[in-house]
Amino acid sequence: MATIVMKFGGTSVADIERIRHAARHVKREVDAGHKVCVVVSAMSGKTNELVAWTREAAPVHDAREYDAVVASGEQVSAGLMSIVLQEMGVPARSFAGWQVPIETSDAHGSARITNIDPKLLFDRMSAGLVCVITGFQGVSPHGRITTLGRGGSDTSAVAVAAAVEADRCDIYTDVDGVYTTDPRIVPKARRIDRISFEEMLEMASLGAKVLQTRSVELAMAKKVRLVVRSSFDDPDQVPPLGENGDWQGPGTLVCDEDEIMEKQIVSGVTSAKSEAKITLRGVKDNPGVAAAVFGPLADAQIVVDMIVQNISDDGKSTDITFTIPDAEFDKAMTVLKEAGETSLEFDSISGSKGGAKISVIGVGMRSHAGVAASMFRALSDKGINIQLITTSEIKTSVLIEEEYAELAVRALHTYYGLDMEEA
Amino acid sequence: MATIVMKFGGTSVADIERIRHAARHVKREVDAGHKVCVVVSAMSGKTNELVAWTREAAPVHDAREYDAVVASGEQVSAGLMSIVLQEMGVPARSFAGWQVPIETSDAHGSARITNIDPKLLFDRMSAGLVCVITGFQGVSPHGRITTLGRGGSDTSAVAVAAAVEADRCDIYTDVDGVYTTDPRIVPKARRIDRISFEEMLEMASLGAKVLQTRSVELAMAKKVRLVVRSSFDDPDQVPPLGENGDWQGPGTLVCDEDEIMEKQIVSGVTSAKSEAKITLRGVKDNPGVAAAVFGPLADAQIVVDMIVQNISDDGKSTDITFTIPDAEFDKAMTVLKEAGETSLEFDSISGSKGGAKISVIGVGMRSHAGVAASMFRALSDKGINIQLITTSEIKTSVLIEEEYAELAVRALHTYYGLDMEEA
Repeated sequence: MATIVMKFGGTSVADIERIRHAARHVKREVDAGHKVCVVVSAMSGKTNELVAWTREAAPVHDAREYDAVVASGEQVSAGLMSIVLQEMGVPARSFAGWQVPIETSDAHGSARITNIDPKLLFDRMSAGLVCVITGFQGVSPHGRITTLGRGGSDTSAVAVAAAVEADRCDIYTDVDGVYTTDPRIVPKARRIDRISFEEMLEMASLGAKVLQTRSVELAMAKKVRLVVRSSFDDPDQVPPLGENGDWQGPGTLVCDEDEIMEKQIVSGVTSAKSEAKITLRGVKDNPGVAAAVFGPLADAQIVVDMIVQNISDDGKSTDITFTIPDAEFDKAMTVLKEAGETSLEFDSISGSKGGAKISVIGVGMRSHAGVAASMFRALSDKGINIQLITTSEIKTSVLIEEEYAELAVRALHTYYGLDMEEA
Repeated sequence: MATIVMKFGGTSVADIERIRHAARHVKREVDAGHKVCVVVSAMSGKTNELVAWTREAAPVHDAREYDAVVASGEQVSAGLMSIVLQEMGVPARSFAGWQVPIETSDAHGSARITNIDPKLLFDRMSAGLVCVITGFQGVSPHGRITTLGRGGSDTSAVAVAAAVEADRCDIYTDVDGVYTTDPRIVPKARRIDRISFEEMLEMASLGAKVLQTRSVELAMAKKVRLVVRSSFDDPDQVPPLGENGDWQGPGTLVCDEDEIMEKQIVSGVTSAKSEAKITLRGVKDNPGVAAAVFGPLADAQIVVDMIVQNISDDGKSTDITFTIPDAEFDKAMTVLKEAGETSLEFDSISGSKGGAKISVIGVGMRSHAGVAASMFRALSDKGINIQLITTSEIKTSVLIEEEYAELAVRALHTYYGLDMEEA
């Protein structure tokens, strides 16, 4: 007998029919003898409706009241899920965040989970009940309802899994796993069977929007094994969790690197379009220059992605290039020109919109030299010009012209042997 | 400076515009220096939507989960009301039932309030905040969310008013007070300025659906002065509560009899149609006979209203007549005929649908003899035949043929001097 946390997102609980379908997945695991906690999002569309009301009430509003309003959506889906489970003969009860309790910071609207007392959950699971818990929310030290920010239900699920020492945390969503790249760009994209937390983190933050970045960070820190899988599967046609917690069904297991026997050099290729680049030439190269450049941008709420700084010829000045979303380009240029008149010294500023960031990701890079070099060669073979390069331990990213993005992704996907084999 | 509880029903918080209008009523009282608690219902229509989902989830369902789902509606309106008040410069915060806490029994779906700890409310009001409290709900001894049953928000408001020792509890609704009779039947119906709790109880249970019966009972027991008034009034055109808690605005004050100087002999006339009557003749007159008649009806969930039992000529048998809703007539006849074959002895059973119950209500009846007699005469003058009569200390009711109902109400309304004077 194992303990499992099953998380269902908004599209998986969009109406009673969908909730009933999700409940059949739960019943399968209960019938196999497992202890189960369920974490639910609000019914698809409901959170948007609630958010719209708070905006109509006042454009700028008390985050504590926003949280009280918006958190009601999960209370509804948790109650309905419990009713549906009971109707199927599965004993269940709902828990609002404050009832567990899921303790959080008081940073309303984007609170962090600080502690989950598992006592009540253990107690109810031992009594044979499925605990259906509202995702996305908790309770502050002052007893107010808090929310964790958009997509926070994934984080709730992982935190609950850590608290009840679950053998696995299954994230049911509208796709059937994590892919080597976007299947809309590369029809031969393969579903990945196993991926390490580190790789998933890079994939998540690079645009494979399957899992919230925070939930993957937490899973890595707490060693919670995640499975990304489809709630649309026929619940009777997929096997339950094995008795010893072994994974035997469809989906992608996100786990510790040690659990992955055959490490791919490259596990996935990602792309992000609409990246603008800005170059400052002849920036005075002294301590604090980076702060002088990026401080004003941060103040203007502009998120900077890739940053490259070259050593200058004379050792006195330097060139800095970085990327930002296209939509922020004009604002960023204005901010920097203004800074140039006061706190920041540089010779010239230039930039352009319409770039694409292409990344290859894989823990195997650590032990295989030359991945970056081979990537550049693969792109060069297709006549694609590389404008910027950044690398981390398990990732190499390049900036290219946007119109070459799909070509680049397909070329790299094939080059690293990720294409699905012909049936 | 006084303390006031202001309750807004579903139509008064139906959308953000309506909430804003209601909030202006609150601001008026705050600006006058009063301490205010607000009690809100769910946005009109929302509770029905939530209830429908629980039914779709399972026709028969766990009342605890029903409560968790349905109580979310007031959480939304309380949060939105707080946001709107803050936007108007009125400091406010929302309280869910469990946050106050409003402690209730664990009779989910129809819980009773057992205790309200006013400490937090006093504390927040002293700090200058308006406390916006979810109506209709509380928390059980087991920490589960409970609801009080339909219309329970009135009861919440009265209970909060008792807990914070409010000078008054204003029930804002879509009518501007309690009327001497239904204005749709009698255009000359007058709004009553003051009415006693006892009279209001009779009015409420007889179909003037302005206030929940339970809330009036509680107000009477706790001596909470109620005002029934319209939320549609222009908030700036009605005066705030007087400094000493005196009533000076529009609406109907429901209060202790002692507060009403000029007692009307009759305060109101009510009517209820679609009443069926059933007569059992020759029922064996011995102890327990009433139970033998009404037990089977109660078991069949049939609510009996008027009951008349005549003493028999021979002292051995009796005739019993009672009324029930028309819709239950066939069922009741079947139930009684079946009982006649086993546990109940009678000579014959007869009955008919299509009656109307007409009542005159007034605390003045206590000290004025002959009200019943004058009522019968007034009806007789119009050629209306009386089928049944029941009386209580402050009420006389008769059953007549349904088609005479409006005529009877108008005649009595005029007879007892309740008609509005011509302008």
